[in-house]
Amino acid sequence: MAENKKIPYKIYLEEREMPTQWYNVRADMKNKPAPLLNPATLEPMKPEELEHVFCKELVQQELDDTTPYFDIPQEIRDFYKMYRPSPLVRAYCLEKALDTPAKIYYKFEGNNTSGSHKLNSAIAQAYYAKKQGLKGVTTETGAGQWGTALSMACSYFDLDCRVYMVKCSYEQKPFRREVMRTYGAQVTPSPSETTAVGRKILEAHPGTTGSLGCAISEAVEDATTHEGYRYVLGSVLSQVLLHQTVIGLETKAALDKYGIKPDMIIGCAGGGSNLGGLISPFVGEKLRGEADYRIIAVEPASCPSLTRGKYAYDFCDTGMVCPLAKMYTLGSGFIPSPNHAGGLRYHGMSSIVSQLYDDKLLEAVSVEQTSVFEAAERFARVEGILPAPESSHAIKVAIDEALKCKETGEEKTIVFGLTGTGYFDMVAYGKYNDGEMLDYIPTDEDLAVGFAGLPKVDK
Amino acid sequence: MAENKKIPYKIYLEEREMPTQWYNVRADMKNKPAPLLNPATLEPMKPEELEHVFCKELVQQELDDTTPYFDIPQEIRDFYKMYRPSPLVRAYCLEKALDTPAKIYYKFEGNNTSGSHKLNSAIAQAYYAKKQGLKGVTTETGAGQWGTALSMACSYFDLDCRVYMVKCSYEQKPFRREVMRTYGAQVTPSPSETTAVGRKILEAHPGTTGSLGCAISEAVEDATTHEGYRYVLGSVLSQVLLHQTVIGLETKAALDKYGIKPDMIIGCAGGGSNLGGLISPFVGEKLRGEADYRIIAVEPASCPSLTRGKYAYDFCDTGMVCPLAKMYTLGSGFIPSPNHAGGLRYHGMSSIVSQLYDDKLLEAVSVEQTSVFEAAERFARVEGILPAPESSHAIKVAIDEALKCKETGEEKTIVFGLTGTGYFDMVAYGKYNDGEMLDYIPTDEDLAVGFAGLPKVDK
Repeated sequence: MAENKKIPYKIYLEEREMPTQWYNVRADMKNKPAPLLNPATLEPMKPEELEHVFCKELVQQELDDTTPYFDIPQEIRDFYKMYRPSPLVRAYCLEKALDTPAKIYYKFEGNNTSGSHKLNSAIAQAYYAKKQGLKGVTTETGAGQWGTALSMACSYFDLDCRVYMVKCSYEQKPFRREVMRTYGAQVTPSPSETTAVGRKILEAHPGTTGSLGCAISEAVEDATTHEGYRYVLGSVLSQVLLHQTVIGLETKAALDKYGIKPDMIIGCAGGGSNLGGLISPFVGEKLRGEADYRIIAVEPASCPSLTRGKYAYDFCDTGMVCPLAKMYTLGSGFIPSPNHAGGLRYHGMSSIVSQLYDDKLLEAVSVEQTSVFEAAERFARVEGILPAPESSHAIKVAIDEALKCKETGEEKTIVFGLTGTGYFDMVAYGKYNDGEMLDYIPTDEDLAVGFAGLPKVDK
Repeated sequence: MAENKKIPYKIYLEEREMPTQWYNVRADMKNKPAPLLNPATLEPMKPEELEHVFCKELVQQELDDTTPYFDIPQEIRDFYKMYRPSPLVRAYCLEKALDTPAKIYYKFEGNNTSGSHKLNSAIAQAYYAKKQGLKGVTTETGAGQWGTALSMACSYFDLDCRVYMVKCSYEQKPFRREVMRTYGAQVTPSPSETTAVGRKILEAHPGTTGSLGCAISEAVEDATTHEGYRYVLGSVLSQVLLHQTVIGLETKAALDKYGIKPDMIIGCAGGGSNLGGLISPFVGEKLRGEADYRIIAVEPASCPSLTRGKYAYDFCDTGMVCPLAKMYTLGSGFIPSPNHAGGLRYHGMSSIVSQLYDDKLLEAVSVEQTSVFEAAERFARVEGILPAPESSHAIKVAIDEALKCKETGEEKTIVFGLTGTGYFDMVAYGKYNDGEMLDYIPTDEDLAVGFAGLPKVDK
């Protein structure tokens, strides 16, 4: 620990300072997240049931809520070295532009071709699939960040990668699709003729442009009906959150190196894996009574699972083929408006983040998208980086908090997660630039539709 | 100098190790580049003539061929700290995939929102414009990398930025346009009704989709007819090459830190500024007799200014409004085929690089675009980064040289410049993925058309 060292614009860890283990925050939680349930029996899912769908070692990681650390295999650490450590950036220029006494830092996860933090878990999941001797993996993708990350990871380990991409995204985001193809992935617009569930949906709704729920169902069917394949998922699950703790561990190591103690940590929340990964080491300190921090989850007002959802068991997918998870949810039948932060449109929230929120270890706020793009543009113009709409939710609240410091004169230290870049989101920026962006807040009646579909589980 | 230290995947300099001066290789050249000529008088351009078009301090940098170092102003160094130092990456994964004893390093300039090295000079040019008290600058852009970089730089210094974007790019690359608008630039499709030259061209060719030459003419007219504006350019000029030496100086500092001596240095060559910037410090050592290196410029077979051009005075622009420069050129009337490496379609070459080539201080090779995309994809799949088509010309030759080492068993050290990312070039990747990419090599008759238009200058 070195107090008073001059803080550079970017704090990079040395290779030897990079984390060698992921941290499992569940081990330190008194109230453990509720177990996944079998939707048919309502009993906790057994490992052997999950191994039909997921890779074996990932199932172990999913179910283990007592082991505090998992070694990161050397092969994954080698891949991490190609794009990690990611920089912890001191936002000197933003501070100056806001004229705030606050000290602002952001952990930037966008410096890789997938453009986001998704690669941290993609490479881990691909590794375990390869280790198990599988031929390949299947997944779904909406906005395309996860599909891109998984394509890169599978190409590195020479695994077959089959991505079901929501048809409207497939057509509207041809560049994302091409990146995946360049990495050798097979990208199928969903719903497709490839699967039984896809054919069924196409028959019922010939003109449909698809949905994430449908794409999940196709990916799961593809994995479970082909020898040597498993299904992988980019968020929500506890295993994904575990892999993403590399973000928080690096952040904490970089802060410690310069003797910096943050007052608050801010992250955007969709499925919850980037937020959970960023905050885990800090929440661990809170849980063990070693330190205290304000922790703020930011979600879109159009899809407010933490701030307006119910803490209940729900289906993880709209196709209802996955296990039930207890989480803050708007109901799997909730249809979010066409918000431009595609990565934050999930109806539920990671069960770990949900339990932490229920235990008041973190706060949540919701923000509207025009204010988010305003913050994004403000940030881009002084800090250079063009942020993803998802990440910009955290920027918005970080700026708000820094401006509060300006009012009060407090020199608070703010850390936020900048999860990715917005290079493939220029349609959204164009709408904002043209003054054509709309905000949308669901009414209580809108929410009631989703809540009505919640399964009846007495747990 | 530390021999035998373990080489990390990425060598980052500390902030305090970053260059504080740019290096002017002309000071060490025995044969100086030929001076710019006034096209009317054929006399060397005087500073006061150039200051009508360009910023004052930039004119000094343009004409000074004796001062070896220029201080980098603190304001520019502060901006550099936001995205520099760029990493020097050891391509361990590529080496393994090629099974070569060669050691491969690349200097990666793509980790900023402009996606390329262009920002290094954009911020410098914006700084000098601001310092001179100007209201704004004008420029042209084809593929859009330069326009994006300049927009970012102008937004940082609160300067007005007017970009004339070749109309077909404006229409086909709406995302690049939106990035510029997000940074506050005014982007005008060229030819436009805004300028006299634009109106004249539109009258003569109502349906034209524009050309770089026309966009230059419009940008120059806009700057010279509006009080408080100057024209800025993203390549070719000696001032731009000077700013880009930050690439080579960082590369050399990072190599020296680990006691690494490269055998060869490879870069792609369009206008020559990134190549010149990368190689300058190494060429300086050659010129001073301190060290020897193979230096290889790589250009597209479709626009082979070094390998098939003539070393002669020529117009820098097709509109013939700019000074004459002595350079390797295909003639300003040469029309390159629609190659996908938009940044490498310039008819001429930086006069510094041209003179070094004529003095045999560097070699040049040309490569065809399908082989370039093949190398790009090979690289992306093992090293993660999706490279720009321009940068991939250097990758292609680096791989070729590494494979030669495999044949001979030589452990050569290869350094190449990875100038940018290909996120906005997915149409080209799509063509390659679909097997629809064509190669094009101009015939001698094609070249004769360009050569016929060379001005008659007896110098």
